Amino acid sequence: MRIEILCTGDEVLTGKITNTNFSYISQKLEDVGLTVVWGTTVGDDRARLLEAFRLAAGRADAVIVNGGLGPTVDDLSQEVAAAAAGVGLVLNEEWLARMEAFFTRRARTMPPNNRKQAMLPEGAEVLDNPIGTACGFALDIGQARFFFTPGVPRELRRMLEEQVIPRLLARAGGPTTIRLKRFHSYGIGESHADALLEGIEALAPDGSVKLGFRAHYPQLETKLTVRGASPEEVAARLAPIEAEIRRRLGNFILAEDDRTLEGEVLAALSAAGGTLSLVETFTAGQIAARLGPLPGAEAVFRRAVVARDPADLAAAVGLEDAPALGPFSEDAAAAAARAIRAGSGASHAMAVLIALDEGPDAIDFGGSIYLAIATAGRLETRRSRILGGREWVRLGAVELGLDCLRRFLTGLPVNERIDFEKT
Amino acid sequence: MRIEILCTGDEVLTGKITNTNFSYISQKLEDVGLTVVWGTTVGDDRARLLEAFRLAAGRADAVIVNGGLGPTVDDLSQEVAAAAAGVGLVLNEEWLARMEAFFTRRARTMPPNNRKQAMLPEGAEVLDNPIGTACGFALDIGQARFFFTPGVPRELRRMLEEQVIPRLLARAGGPTTIRLKRFHSYGIGESHADALLEGIEALAPDGSVKLGFRAHYPQLETKLTVRGASPEEVAARLAPIEAEIRRRLGNFILAEDDRTLEGEVLAALSAAGGTLSLVETFTAGQIAARLGPLPGAEAVFRRAVVARDPADLAAAVGLEDAPALGPFSEDAAAAAARAIRAGSGASHAMAVLIALDEGPDAIDFGGSIYLAIATAGRLETRRSRILGGREWVRLGAVELGLDCLRRFLTGLPVNERIDFEKT
Repeated sequence: MRIEILCTGDEVLTGKITNTNFSYISQKLEDVGLTVVWGTTVGDDRARLLEAFRLAAGRADAVIVNGGLGPTVDDLSQEVAAAAAGVGLVLNEEWLARMEAFFTRRARTMPPNNRKQAMLPEGAEVLDNPIGTACGFALDIGQARFFFTPGVPRELRRMLEEQVIPRLLARAGGPTTIRLKRFHSYGIGESHADALLEGIEALAPDGSVKLGFRAHYPQLETKLTVRGASPEEVAARLAPIEAEIRRRLGNFILAEDDRTLEGEVLAALSAAGGTLSLVETFTAGQIAARLGPLPGAEAVFRRAVVARDPADLAAAVGLEDAPALGPFSEDAAAAAARAIRAGSGASHAMAVLIALDEGPDAIDFGGSIYLAIATAGRLETRRSRILGGREWVRLGAVELGLDCLRRFLTGLPVNERIDFEKT
Repeated sequence: MRIEILCTGDEVLTGKITNTNFSYISQKLEDVGLTVVWGTTVGDDRARLLEAFRLAAGRADAVIVNGGLGPTVDDLSQEVAAAAAGVGLVLNEEWLARMEAFFTRRARTMPPNNRKQAMLPEGAEVLDNPIGTACGFALDIGQARFFFTPGVPRELRRMLEEQVIPRLLARAGGPTTIRLKRFHSYGIGESHADALLEGIEALAPDGSVKLGFRAHYPQLETKLTVRGASPEEVAARLAPIEAEIRRRLGNFILAEDDRTLEGEVLAALSAAGGTLSLVETFTAGQIAARLGPLPGAEAVFRRAVVARDPADLAAAVGLEDAPALGPFSEDAAAAAARAIRAGSGASHAMAVLIALDEGPDAIDFGGSIYLAIATAGRLETRRSRILGGREWVRLGAVELGLDCLRRFLTGLPVNERIDFEKT
């Protein structure tokens, strides 16, 4: 099935907003094994919209139109869809009632403008939008089925998931139970992961499992799409493959599906009744900022201290009289972690000290990272070196710190080599 | 002039990477008064690329093609461009020599693959890429002039600025000296700014100044595009208008052009020979993380302390024996700022304490922000309330803190009301 995504709106066309809806839709379709072959973007212009609808109707089997369902005069999707299909617009009384109820629940009167949102092309099938006033709909134009969706991202996402994808899968035929399984890792690059997972798709019969990656430094997402006739069949196919992926990627998998690295760290600390304090230098509070605002962090996150200068840092963690913390080293990190742990009464403490290279920022600019994690009875330290410019070092050090914490808390080696390190 | 942007590549089409190049190109063209009327995205597929080139050649005057200039077999732009134009591919000896020198400078031998990047359609005009091996080029296909650009963002950006835009402006005719002036503000919404700047375009003759906005919460960017026959004419037209914008937006302008809020704060502290310490709660180190990693911050940024619990916070800033810091208040913020200033020896200290609402995250979830900035002889405090969900509160509080610091350091009122506050 050839699918086209057609994004509308002056704000998207002129770059005033970045079109994240396009990549979101495209990715979601890929995740269920559907393939987008064409993308089109046009503004709020009747003639160009009509031309875009006609072109898409001629070359695609299914078209997802995004945007243009709002109440204002520049929202043209229904009107142009009707023109392209050669039908009129009719008031959908049911949707009008839904909108009126929507406003009533919010103690407001529906503005007359919004009535426009209930005018649909004759013969259109309604696609429910339980969280907004834009009415989605599906309609045949030429040989293609068009699915009209709202531009508001959270409304689009829900409608895509609940209304559009099931209809597309039904039209595509074949097994329609599909599951997306995701593994998040830190420390292996995409080509390395690809090599480690060679042959994984062949463990399932006849192409029912598809492997993919999405790299967003410093993390890598490994995705498995599994298809089958029923949830039971999908689960049975997935089980041995996910076990094999866990075996091959091993300690590098930091979380699965919707879970996050910082969420796993917080969960492990919460489960152990632990509390955490942090010492940072060049990362300047970014490790703390990943953990500190999470729901539940108020019971776990005890204290973070940031300083750039070794003497300032020593004073900030109460080590004025001890040997200085500079130049930074694993010993200095251990001393800083122990000091903040003692000073704050936390069960766990981590210090991440970074000695930046001298000179201007450049692609080979690097930093040496000295890390220590301490509890009452245990200390682990690590030295790492990351190149790639100031920002790359900063991002890498934040992730390295959080991942070492995860490893420490879950009994995995803190010192396993990663692909991003230079020696 | 009708301009089309044609993005190529499977990674963009499948949503594996978000297409930020599209919005970047579109916005840059808008900024110089050029208008994009159509956007197309296709994958690395010969037949579809050829079809896309033919459609664009038939409806646009100029087409910017992005991607497909790399050395691998799925980079098809030169080949398909030649086919669409009905010409052959010829080796550009000059570019081949440039590439060989590029690799030699890096002490590497050019892989044979890369030779492909010097094969250009016959009659193509080279568009220089001083920072990569992908050779840009321009070529007529049908009635349209096509500009082929690399997919690597930093290479695209430079080529667009130096090679493509000047050629487009020359083709468009009219005054070709164009200047983009930008003002960054915090605290006024887009519609409020629009109202404040009503009539501003009319201060310049015959449409030579265009006003635009780009909102990215919590900041708003106000953009002026000024056209004229010469740099002197542009400067003369811009001068009274930028003065008027500074007058109308006043204290809300936090930086201009490429400068940033955190950069201005750091510059003001550096100029005064000052140093800074910070106390944070729910923002959890994010204010520190905006300032701490900047070049030059090592001489200014003294210390940051983060805690979520009032008693922990009191201990962390050395206030164990003083009145407790909770519940948070302006007085507590003042005590915390004074304590960390004294403890760290900084000339300036700011504390941002946040009392979050109870209950689950929702659109009306809010937080009360208590802020204090202290020096040896001066203390300013502020109370603010922001609604919109946990993340909205966090982002707003980070920006509010940095902006209050800017105001404090530059002699502006710290307590001026902003549009995002609720009372």
